[in-house]
Order: sequence, then structure tokens, then C-alpha cells
Amino acid sequence: MAFVPLKGVYVLDCSTLLPGPYCTMMLAEMGAKVVKVERAGTGEPMRTTIPGCFDYLNGNKKFVTLNLKQPKGKALFLKMAEKADVVVEGFRPGTVKRLGIDFESVKKINPAIIYCSLSGHGQTGPYANIPGHDVNYQGLSGLLNISGNPEAGPEFPDGFQAADLSGSMFALVSILAALNAKDKSATYLDISISESLAMWMMPRFFEYLSEGKPSKSKFMGRGPYGIFETKDGKYITIGVVENHFWDNLCKVLNFDDLASDPTLGSWHARNHERAKIVPRLKKAIKKKDADDWIRILTAADIPAAPVCDFEDWHNNPQFKYKNFIPTKTDGSIDRNAFRRFPLTDIKIDNQQNQEDTAIGKDNFEILTDLGISDTEIDAYKKEGVI
Amino acid sequence: MAFVPLKGVYVLDCSTLLPGPYCTMMLAEMGAKVVKVERAGTGEPMRTTIPGCFDYLNGNKKFVTLNLKQPKGKALFLKMAEKADVVVEGFRPGTVKRLGIDFESVKKINPAIIYCSLSGHGQTGPYANIPGHDVNYQGLSGLLNISGNPEAGPEFPDGFQAADLSGSMFALVSILAALNAKDKSATYLDISISESLAMWMMPRFFEYLSEGKPSKSKFMGRGPYGIFETKDGKYITIGVVENHFWDNLCKVLNFDDLASDPTLGSWHARNHERAKIVPRLKKAIKKKDADDWIRILTAADIPAAPVCDFEDWHNNPQFKYKNFIPTKTDGSIDRNAFRRFPLTDIKIDNQQNQEDTAIGKDNFEILTDLGISDTEIDAYKKEGVI
Repeated sequence: MAFVPLKGVYVLDCSTLLPGPYCTMMLAEMGAKVVKVERAGTGEPMRTTIPGCFDYLNGNKKFVTLNLKQPKGKALFLKMAEKADVVVEGFRPGTVKRLGIDFESVKKINPAIIYCSLSGHGQTGPYANIPGHDVNYQGLSGLLNISGNPEAGPEFPDGFQAADLSGSMFALVSILAALNAKDKSATYLDISISESLAMWMMPRFFEYLSEGKPSKSKFMGRGPYGIFETKDGKYITIGVVENHFWDNLCKVLNFDDLASDPTLGSWHARNHERAKIVPRLKKAIKKKDADDWIRILTAADIPAAPVCDFEDWHNNPQFKYKNFIPTKTDGSIDRNAFRRFPLTDIKIDNQQNQEDTAIGKDNFEILTDLGISDTEIDAYKKEGVI
Repeated sequence: MAFVPLKGVYVLDCSTLLPGPYCTMMLAEMGAKVVKVERAGTGEPMRTTIPGCFDYLNGNKKFVTLNLKQPKGKALFLKMAEKADVVVEGFRPGTVKRLGIDFESVKKINPAIIYCSLSGHGQTGPYANIPGHDVNYQGLSGLLNISGNPEAGPEFPDGFQAADLSGSMFALVSILAALNAKDKSATYLDISISESLAMWMMPRFFEYLSEGKPSKSKFMGRGPYGIFETKDGKYITIGVVENHFWDNLCKVLNFDDLASDPTLGSWHARNHERAKIVPRLKKAIKKKDADDWIRILTAADIPAAPVCDFEDWHNNPQFKYKNFIPTKTDGSIDRNAFRRFPLTDIKIDNQQNQEDTAIGKDNFEILTDLGISDTEIDAYKKEGVI
């Protein structure tokens, strides 16, 4: 049975850029009412740096502006916080305290508040006040050190914002856990992005210990597991870990000598002896086109998939089947049918999706909800409070 | 106030390797009782492939063995499932149906069950039966296509299992959301790993659209944002995005001409004109040691951090402050004090941590809980049911 898990949950969000907004986007997608509080006037930086990303991250929220530095702006924030179930903020440590909207201040007026601070390195410790972005946390967490070429120095893999999203996901998990708690006392969630990513590195850390602290080159060296170029200049991935997949691969490629080679009898062995495997595999895969290989390899029950670019998303059979990128008749993305959460039995509240992400769009509605009169709202506007 | 959010929640887990076990490890860490069901005899593959990782992922769970192919094994599983709040499985689509332990079978005896299937591409669609591993999902999701050298083909960044963990995290979030729902009817969660990772790629996808579908080289090209080698052969990261950080960087490095260069006035511009910046930045950073740069750059309020390897975790000031790797007096990791979840106000139930991860360790306890006699348990053992 499909359900909207967070119906009735009210989230007040004054975070910016990616980490906080990604977390609250998911909360909104699960049915929470998320009020995004932006700086009066300019709004948050993502509006201008990457507008498309701003719309994606925030297109299911309410938009309110507030000048938190003015006493009246602070008072309005606290009035909203009184009614909220969750507050999310992503300022530098110390800022909310200075503004008077910190956990202690909100707790006084709302003893059941869940207050989540999402910051680079957490609220305390020697790094707490050091600014950072995704690449800095990726370095600290140990990720970058085992990235790039196994035989060379670290390389920033870009790809996606692994660190920022680790913070988003652990903030999300912690908020859901707190909402789930029977005891409804105030809860403070101090999420550190660099620590969150380190949590994702833990399986690698224990692998590293388990294997006797190998060198980077040894730790990263892979046998029939990686990216291979095809005849048509495209790329496919092959992910052979288990022995039965290795047997299947050798059969398809007529690698009879490798199949019977006793030095290649396990995942570890094939990584260690990769020089015997990788050059031949590269050469073999170069002989046919990507589509042909995907058909041949998957038919032989071998883990393989195309390397997609974003254009491929529209035509990949699996993503197409799932209607991953719903489009309107004119070919543009249909934001009202668009999912921001993987398909599950959880019903997504698409009614909240909207094309209109104008700054301060919902000032009137939200302030009216707080019992503030039209005249007062006009005065707030004139004074630059909203 | 600290709390154990999942106290009293009972999770039955027959998943293997990384994706499912990482999810249930987090559930256990939040206080759930997780019973790990392994194949009678050999146990799950991770025990032998990466033992250290197995202990990390499962060291806070109960260990039970079952031969699910025997009718008596299946009957025992269903008896446990009757009492469970959550079932997690990671078999290939179709397997649980064949074994008779699928959602429909469990729902009949437990109308409030939350049943989570975690698979490569989801339970349905043209890719559903194609096997896969992390690298394959990374390719499909679009991650690999924008990895590695901006001027060259894709490169597997290794680092961490981004795809597997995306599946873990969305399974975790979905289970928490379902536990949170007021309506306690049976819920089926069909989590696709490739789709989960694509969800993490969405901010990049919308950035790509927002920027008019740039080429890989243009999309990935970065200015003062990346990894830089220092005099002592170490590496640091610099993450200058905002203009005020750029000003600070130029001041510290005496890049007066760049600071006043009107073509470098924004994040976008600095990425575009990176040829003016990166070579000079590389040269400058090569002139001092890593520790010196971290001190100098952070004192000037510039986003910077060291590139740590796993050994550095023990000595990094921030991780040390947070007691990230608690050790015993003999220097070994103290598993009883070890955290598997970032530090928050959520109280972690460390009582569950254990060094002993022997296969079938808790068979007796769990079967006794089901009202099964010692004689019956002995018979099950002899018949290879457990």
C-alpha cells in the first residue's frame, strides 16, 4: 500500500547550496511541508550560480524571505519555528547563535523541536571554523587518496558531490530517526559532512586493514572489473567479481587458457594478476560495438552495462521503462511528474512539484498562517524584513 | 536529549556483501535488533572475501544460519518473519518468490511487514535480471562519464562503492519512512541501486541542463578547485568557489594581477579561464609543505584540507578530537566504542557491538525465542537446516 510517510510534518529550512536543500527536498518529496527561508533581497547563492539545480532542489518547497539580522526578521523566524517539527540550517558554526535562532533559543519556545545543523566538520573541534567545499571533505575522508590512477597521485574524480550528499543523507536519516522516536523531547543533530563521507569510506578502511594495509596501487588494482572502450569509441563496464562470472567471461571471449589458469582462481588472485587479464580484455572488447557487447555479455550472465551520459538517460531501456525522465509533448521535462526519490511503495506527493520557484513567492501565505495581517506584511516588505 | 530511535524494532536480514548489510548495520546502530540470516554451512561470501569488512558491517547483529531451500528452513524463516517489523533481502529478482519467502508470502502471516528488496536495477524492467556490481551501476547512472581526466575518456575512480551505498542509503531512508508512517499496513520497498545512484546524479544533471549541455571537458573543468601537490610530495585540496574566497586566495599567494582580472570575476568565469589560474596555483603550492599550507590557507579563511590516507585518520586533529577511531591500549581498534553512525544526539546502542562474529552464533538464542526446543534445534543441525 502506497503512503505519504511525512504528511503533516513541518520543516523550516534556512540552508543553502546543495547539502541542506538536498536533504529537505527528500523530506518534501515524502510529504513534509518544507518552508525554505532565504535572505531577503538576493535569495540564496544557488539561484544565480546554477539556476537549474536550484529549481530541482527546491521545486517542491515553499519560498519565504527573511532578513534574519533584523530583530523583526528573527522574531518571524522564531514564530515559524514554534510551529515547526524540524529546523535545518547550514550556516557556519556560531552563526545561528549570533542570530539568536540556535537550538537553545528554539527549544525554549518549542520543546519538541528536531534541530539539525549541517556543516563541513561539525560544530566543535579544531576544524569546526574552517570553511570547506566538497573537494576538501573528499580529501579529508580518505576518498581522494584512493582515486584516479592506481600508479599515480590522487585525482579529483568530480562525478558527483559525494561529500555534500553524504551529509545530506545522514542528516535525512537522522531526522527520520528522530521523527520516529517515541520520546518527543527536543533533539539536536550535529551533522559533519567530512565525518559523514568518512562513514561511507569505512568498508574500504576495514578492507584496507583486512588486506594488511596494502599500497595504493595494490589496493586499487583490479582485474576484469572496470571500464573498457568498444569499437565505436563508446565505453562499457564489466564487473566480474565472483568465479562463476569469470568462467562465463572466459567462455564468451574464448580465454580458455585464462579460465584454466590456477593463478586466477579468485577475485583477489585476478586483481593481483591483472597484468595477465586487463590488456587482453581491452583488446577483445575493442573488437565490437558497445550495444553488441552489452547484448552478448548480459545474455551470457556477465555483469555488464553501458557507460551512459545524461543524454543516454532518455533512451536507456531500463530508465525508459521506469519513466525516469518524464517529458511533456514538447520534449521538456515534466516537473509535475518528476520524481526526486527512487521508485518504491512510498507515495510521492507530486502535488507539491511546481515550475514557479520565484523568491519570496509564499511570503503572504506563510505569514498569514502565522496570523499576521496584510498591513503588517506590507510594512515588513517596506522595512526589508521579508 | 540522546535517544535510541529504533529500540524494539526487529529486522530480519538475508542480504549479502555490501548494499543490504550496510543498510541493516545502520538500523542496528540505531537500536534495532537485526538478525542476519546466512546460508547454512558456508555463510555469506563477504566472510571469506573481505573478513575485516564483514566484521565491520555485521558486528552489531545476531547471526543465524538457515538452509532456505529446505522446507524446514523456509518454515523457520517465515516463523521469524511473523515477528519481524522489517525484512531486507538482496537476492536476484525472482529468487525470494521461488523460495517462498517473498513479500506476498510474508504479508499473509504478517500484515504490517515492511519488506525491502534491494537489487541492481529493481524488480522489473528489461535490466531486472542482468547481474551487476558497483562499477556497472556507476556507468549506467552517468557518474563514470564525468569522472577522471576532463580531456579523456571515463575512468573508474574506485574510492568507495558509490552505487552500492546509494542503494543502502535509499533503502535505509525508505525503511525509516515506512516505520514512521501512521498507517501500519504492509509495505513493499523495491530499491534499485542503479536508480538510487542516478538520484545522486540529479544535481549534476540539472547543472548540465542549466549550463546548456556542455562538453565533458567544459563541464568538468575547474579553476582553483581541486588537488594540489606540495613540496614534501603530499597533497592538499583547495575548494575556492565564492568570490570572497578567491580574493583571500589571491591575497595569500600575491596573485594581484589575477585578483584584479575582470575575466575571473565569478566561479563560472574562473572555471572557464582555468588555464590562467591552475598552472600558477600548482607552481605556488609546490613551494611549501602540506602542513604549512593548511595552516596558512585556513588562517586566511580559504577552504583547504589535507588529502588523508587511512593512516592519517589516526592523527588528523579533527578526527582525533571526535575519537573517530577509538583504540585500545594495545593500539587495536576498540570495537565496543566504535561508531558506525556519525556523531549526533542519537544515542548509539554500543552494547550490541561485539568482536565475535562466528557463523550461526545466535542460532540457539533466536530459535529458542521462537519456542523451539533444544532437541528440535539439535535435529535441525543434523539435517543441515541450520
